[in-house]
Amino acid sequence: MSKSCIFCSIIAGKEPGTMVYRDHNFLVIMDKYPINPGHTLVIPVKHYDDLLNMPPAEVGKLHSLVPLIAKAVVSAVKADGFNVGQNNGIAANQIVPHVHVHIVPRFNDDSPDGKWPARRVASNEELAKIAHKVKQEITLVPSK
Amino acid sequence: MSKSCIFCSIIAGKEPGTMVYRDHNFLVIMDKYPINPGHTLVIPVKHYDDLLNMPPAEVGKLHSLVPLIAKAVVSAVKADGFNVGQNNGIAANQIVPHVHVHIVPRFNDDSPDGKWPARRVASNEELAKIAHKVKQEITLVPSK
Repeated sequence: MSKSCIFCSIIAGKEPGTMVYRDHNFLVIMDKYPINPGHTLVIPVKHYDDLLNMPPAEVGKLHSLVPLIAKAVVSAVKADGFNVGQNNGIAANQIVPHVHVHIVPRFNDDSPDGKWPARRVASNEELAKIAHKVKQEITLVPSK
Repeated sequence: MSKSCIFCSIIAGKEPGTMVYRDHNFLVIMDKYPINPGHTLVIPVKHYDDLLNMPPAEVGKLHSLVPLIAKAVVSAVKADGFNVGQNNGIAANQIVPHVHVHIVPRFNDDSPDGKWPARRVASNEELAKIAHKVKQEITLVPSK
């Protein structure tokens, strides 16, 4: 755990986060600054600054959870597609230096100019409402 | 295998591709249309249209290879960071409907306007030169 890390603080229950799923190793929350409604983060409980500091087997476990969450997100917000993204380093726009995988639902009409939709601040009420829907759509989680 | 799939054709040796790594389950090639030099694709040999059609355990295995390749790519092109990206569906800019993970090296000065650098067509000579460097930097690959 890193004391100054916002994700470690959310994991420790010291900062609020809109929870979707949690097990011993991983946490799934709604992104407070979504690119689109349903933008979700899959986060290892253990702190790793970036992918190169994380054991490859752990990266694999993290990503084996991603399609299960993505399926639920896509169903919950009726998305037409989704991006999976994970940034490493300031040069790559990594904002929080704790490994996290973005699941970004996409819609056919969300990018008329071909650029990524801009991020915005979502209200806690909006996030809670979507998280509730996503939770209902999670039908299969690997046993730990 | 899908007959009309360019990645299946490369895997079958029917179309050219600049190879970086290959084992029984996965293939790593240089992206012909790189965002930055060193842009690499990690691809399952077996054809899956998108992440929701791929068994989660296979997604995990695919991604356990990603940090090993990313480390080599970062060393080879002396990147300051990197993005990992995987697109699902036309709405999410998936061009080839065969699951593939992008490893995009990033540099501190590559995005002065905050946007992603534009993709371009790379010459086969350039790709072969970088692939050679990446191969030399691959120091650890999980046993299969």
